[in-house]
Amino acid sequence: MSFQRTLIAKPDGRRLWYYSWDRPPPAVKANGTRRALESEGLGLRWHPLLEEWIVVAPERQERTFLPPAEYCPLCPTRDASRPTEVPSAEYEVVVFENRFPSFRRDAPKAGKVRPPFATERARGAAEVVLYSPEHEASLGELPARQVERLVEVWADRYRELASRREVAYVLIFENRGREIGVTLTHPHGQIYAFPFVPPQVQRELSAAARYRRERRRCLHCDIVAAETKGRERVVAANDGFVAFVPFFARWPYEVHVVSTRHFASLAELSGDEQRDLAALLRTVLQKYDHLWGAPMPFAMVMHQRPADGKRYPGCHFHIEITPPYRSRGKLKYLAGCETGAGTFINDARAEETAAELRWAEPRT
Amino acid sequence: MSFQRTLIAKPDGRRLWYYSWDRPPPAVKANGTRRALESEGLGLRWHPLLEEWIVVAPERQERTFLPPAEYCPLCPTRDASRPTEVPSAEYEVVVFENRFPSFRRDAPKAGKVRPPFATERARGAAEVVLYSPEHEASLGELPARQVERLVEVWADRYRELASRREVAYVLIFENRGREIGVTLTHPHGQIYAFPFVPPQVQRELSAAARYRRERRRCLHCDIVAAETKGRERVVAANDGFVAFVPFFARWPYEVHVVSTRHFASLAELSGDEQRDLAALLRTVLQKYDHLWGAPMPFAMVMHQRPADGKRYPGCHFHIEITPPYRSRGKLKYLAGCETGAGTFINDARAEETAAELRWAEPRT
Repeated sequence: MSFQRTLIAKPDGRRLWYYSWDRPPPAVKANGTRRALESEGLGLRWHPLLEEWIVVAPERQERTFLPPAEYCPLCPTRDASRPTEVPSAEYEVVVFENRFPSFRRDAPKAGKVRPPFATERARGAAEVVLYSPEHEASLGELPARQVERLVEVWADRYRELASRREVAYVLIFENRGREIGVTLTHPHGQIYAFPFVPPQVQRELSAAARYRRERRRCLHCDIVAAETKGRERVVAANDGFVAFVPFFARWPYEVHVVSTRHFASLAELSGDEQRDLAALLRTVLQKYDHLWGAPMPFAMVMHQRPADGKRYPGCHFHIEITPPYRSRGKLKYLAGCETGAGTFINDARAEETAAELRWAEPRT
Repeated sequence: MSFQRTLIAKPDGRRLWYYSWDRPPPAVKANGTRRALESEGLGLRWHPLLEEWIVVAPERQERTFLPPAEYCPLCPTRDASRPTEVPSAEYEVVVFENRFPSFRRDAPKAGKVRPPFATERARGAAEVVLYSPEHEASLGELPARQVERLVEVWADRYRELASRREVAYVLIFENRGREIGVTLTHPHGQIYAFPFVPPQVQRELSAAARYRRERRRCLHCDIVAAETKGRERVVAANDGFVAFVPFFARWPYEVHVVSTRHFASLAELSGDEQRDLAALLRTVLQKYDHLWGAPMPFAMVMHQRPADGKRYPGCHFHIEITPPYRSRGKLKYLAGCETGAGTFINDARAEETAAELRWAEPRT
């Protein structure tokens, strides 16, 4: 570990970690209110028709909604009488527990219900990762060195959260852009530590395990080989990683960033691979923004080994990025067919959108 | 069958059916262009990570996008030099094959690919059901008699499409509102006839079959009993059907309309049940519009017995309606956690949104 991690307890009981490499951590001080975190209504409800957990988090209705920049709760505190989430601008990366959590270490007890209903505590964690004290920055525009730091932070959060007994899965993700409902525009990502393996992740893992059983090979390694050989859907690549619009994309501009070496989590990255991942992520996100000369919204989700102690043969680290546009200015909506039946209609050929992204360069 | 069904072939090869009860069908004539339907790029691609089919339909990018009302292609033709989809306004209900289909009877052959990729023809059907010649109507505002006619049409389309050899599932649905991407506002629903059982439907059927095997009871009947006993999540009910925000709702204002009698498809409805379904659907949709005094967008999806000839023990007819709002004026977006991991965060308690809907009445 090349960084120093400094823990601060916020007055309301939440925790904050400064990650420091080249400078000392900010003077350690806490700020914010002592008001206890409200999430009395938080809990899991079992969906008996789909056999999956739903997170019910009513206090999230109260979360800050697109405040003007001067009221951004993720900017460093400028005025002590109006504390924000971060006391100091002198940080490199900072992580803290979400004020409006979907999962909590100390989640309230579950209410009792009778079958066919069921409930459970929403134990786990919801963390916010601030990429920069600058309100106008974005992941793709950060200096390469800063994205490398983020890769180290993601790996560290993965290791720490995965080691907790109640955690079965660590989901590292970023939602970017109002088009997908982001309520705070300050550049940040999120981490959810789940007490179960989320159902779509579970399906991917089952498919990879089945493929490995039947063919004695890794499904993801085979996909990387096929996409790299054909090249028509490759967006960018380096030694450690390849980015492509998969043949089977559900979204027109969906990109998968997959490691060329077979490993299962961020905890297993070499130093070179950390740099390669940071470099390729930057390239892909920059291409998105260059495509139409405007910031591209997306959901970016990392897929890695669950933390529930079970074996997952065929698990292979990868990142899935799904922008919500189907063409310039036209959003792809999920409606009856997708949300009601589970089948995606993709209005674009992966070969064409991959070529668009491959050739997307800064406008001069 | 109380109606007369009249088939017309459009010049481009698509079919149109007039459904008539109280008046004679419109003078049978075809209109439109002879230009062949373009869907050369249409096909299925196998998603090996999720083990499901993706529909790729690039010609759908060209579909008509929110035209002004006077150019609505779903309004009856007023000017012969500018034909629309429907030659005459003198119809009661009309159904026709979609000009921008996701599935087709005569779908093009699938391109060849190597494993781990796979393709298949997108055989099936995509139909449009016009509820009314009136551009400004909506399902909830139609006269009760007209909604009863629609229930008969849905049952007839279900029977006809389910009887086709290539069809495994008949999905009857309506997407309403620009908020979920509707590109034509004229009141209409859609029907997709799939050559496979869609994955989310498959999961529901597997869960119901497992429940029946383990408990020797119908999961849906047990849910209806539990929701009816508690009543706190019931929105409205009559003899044949009950509408409730399920305990396990994924969306804040999600409503399930479930038959009180155990049967598996629209083809099994009695005359009384047809009337009860029409009445309860109208009530629920009116309550949605009364809630905030504005038309509520939603995806409405009917769940019924697949047409693939397999047994589906525990299959129970029901309708799922999911409006995209989380509270007045605030959309619920699907982002990283939902589309990337498959877990829904619901920011509302079903008990509270059900009470809101139950008490929603016309403003005076």
